[in-house]
Amino acid sequence: MNRRNKDDDRHLPTLADVAARAGVSTATVSRCLNSPAQVQQATRDRVMAAIADLGYSPNFGARALAARRTGTIGAIIPTMENAIFARALQAFQEELHLNGITLLVASSSYRPEIEEEQIRTLVARGADALLLIGHDRAPALYEFLESRGVPLLITWVFDPALSRPSIGFDNRRSMAALAGEVLGQGHREIGIISAEVEGNDRARARVEGVHDALRVQGLDPARAQLIETTYSFESGGAALARMMAHPTRPTAVICGNDVLAVGALQMARKLGLRVPQDISITGFDDIELATVVEPPLTTVHVPHREMGRAAARRLVAMLAGEGHGNSVCLETRLCLRDTLAPPARNS
Amino acid sequence: MNRRNKDDDRHLPTLADVAARAGVSTATVSRCLNSPAQVQQATRDRVMAAIADLGYSPNFGARALAARRTGTIGAIIPTMENAIFARALQAFQEELHLNGITLLVASSSYRPEIEEEQIRTLVARGADALLLIGHDRAPALYEFLESRGVPLLITWVFDPALSRPSIGFDNRRSMAALAGEVLGQGHREIGIISAEVEGNDRARARVEGVHDALRVQGLDPARAQLIETTYSFESGGAALARMMAHPTRPTAVICGNDVLAVGALQMARKLGLRVPQDISITGFDDIELATVVEPPLTTVHVPHREMGRAAARRLVAMLAGEGHGNSVCLETRLCLRDTLAPPARNS
Repeated sequence: MNRRNKDDDRHLPTLADVAARAGVSTATVSRCLNSPAQVQQATRDRVMAAIADLGYSPNFGARALAARRTGTIGAIIPTMENAIFARALQAFQEELHLNGITLLVASSSYRPEIEEEQIRTLVARGADALLLIGHDRAPALYEFLESRGVPLLITWVFDPALSRPSIGFDNRRSMAALAGEVLGQGHREIGIISAEVEGNDRARARVEGVHDALRVQGLDPARAQLIETTYSFESGGAALARMMAHPTRPTAVICGNDVLAVGALQMARKLGLRVPQDISITGFDDIELATVVEPPLTTVHVPHREMGRAAARRLVAMLAGEGHGNSVCLETRLCLRDTLAPPARNS
Repeated sequence: MNRRNKDDDRHLPTLADVAARAGVSTATVSRCLNSPAQVQQATRDRVMAAIADLGYSPNFGARALAARRTGTIGAIIPTMENAIFARALQAFQEELHLNGITLLVASSSYRPEIEEEQIRTLVARGADALLLIGHDRAPALYEFLESRGVPLLITWVFDPALSRPSIGFDNRRSMAALAGEVLGQGHREIGIISAEVEGNDRARARVEGVHDALRVQGLDPARAQLIETTYSFESGGAALARMMAHPTRPTAVICGNDVLAVGALQMARKLGLRVPQDISITGFDDIELATVVEPPLTTVHVPHREMGRAAARRLVAMLAGEGHGNSVCLETRLCLRDTLAPPARNS
């Protein structure tokens, strides 16, 4: 017999130990854990009693055991193409792993209909909880998740006006701080290269942040030239080229993220413009790319890893029945590097 | 009644149409598609006949219908942290999406025990097929997948000696071509910064490729200084610093991928070494980073997107019952940019 007592801490109880104690097959124990509805109540009670007696934990924290069904959490990110979401997600996964939870990730290409399909798939595949980026999506989807009783955490944003739990940061205030610095150095002709704001509350809030900073200086937000595009090096570069062909050239271009900013930086070089002497360019995120490029990028540091870890801890607590708690706003930080300087006198 | 005939191409038949024709509920039709084992044979036959009559396709190619259960494919990659796997995976997902299949991704942090857990989770969650990176893993895992009848495709490698289907490229030959170019420019003191080769057939093959090139020149492979480390900017930089502290400094450092190479490049700058005048540095992969850094990186271009798309098409065909076909070797290409030059005379 494989039966162990709790004091024998050199050997954690196994599935086989549970099966032996409950007098059922290991397959039945698995079914109790993974598809309890398929097991008769009496059998299930016997197996659960054996689990409790032995202190058996199927590879994850015992507290979460009662509440969880599959040990799987799903996350949907807008893209895998660049490192924006990668770092937070890696930390998110590492923290979940410490709690015995497996992360399954889907990437929606910033398309709501694909995200919806992925949400439904993850729920159908038994995800115990979901992590989603931003709040912008059809109300029916939130109702669907609620009707299925799937705990949900939003990240990358913090909006105190919404009751839905989130662990993120204030995109608007963070960008306003950066834009305030740009204006403080004397720039008045501002260009904004943003992701498409429709369906993207992070991008929208960042544009609003630039507008806030303009208003603080008594300037009309409409004077900032805005180009919305997709997040890629090429589109950042193309947007900069369009701006520089405009009759009133900006002296500073504020980009919605580091990928767009690096694309703009490369295009500036191609156009023979020196950064920051001829034009200032700023990013957002502070991914590794920001310090790899020459000159290093002035940007906003987002605590991606901390955000990923905190989100994982919160979801584990939610699965353990601790409720969703308050939304959390993490602090961002201005990184003043070498792509921002006062405008040239004659530009 | 919702019944349609096949000629009405303005309206694709729906689940409700199938249910009405078969005289069952829509829930039963769903069950036939998702968990056929739970439906009685006679009912299943009636539903399948209705599906065939109406030409109904639940959001994906009809050919795959019979063979597939959940419309989900799983992929496990070693890391999400950098862009190495991201680009191929994005293309993989886009192609799967065209076929109505949802991709779920897990990332194993290069740890076999995490990968194993993820493989088992994906199978338990009903993945119809799996995409895995490289061949190196415990035989028991392959047996597990075979016993579950889960089709499997390997990518990132091409090894004609193995019968398991793969769509990849020849890591060894590709790296040998690059190393041959390095030696051809006159370098004799070579450093290699590699990922840990244990459990990583791609990294191992690349190191062997450098050794092959040395042998072709009649040189002893042992004369190349090899440092194995993790894939990150920091570890690439740290490895370069160690090499440069060695009594016989290399004049060229061949890195296992672009991330290591960029880390080495940054460290070279910190150490006051000019690239390529004082030291040559090469990468592997040709991710976007390679052209963003200054000077642009000499590297090996891997057709990541093409590989991702081809892998998706092959898996769709496998799910449609077409067998796994032959392994495919995609061509890589040498990218000679600005980080490789002949060694300085006095170095």
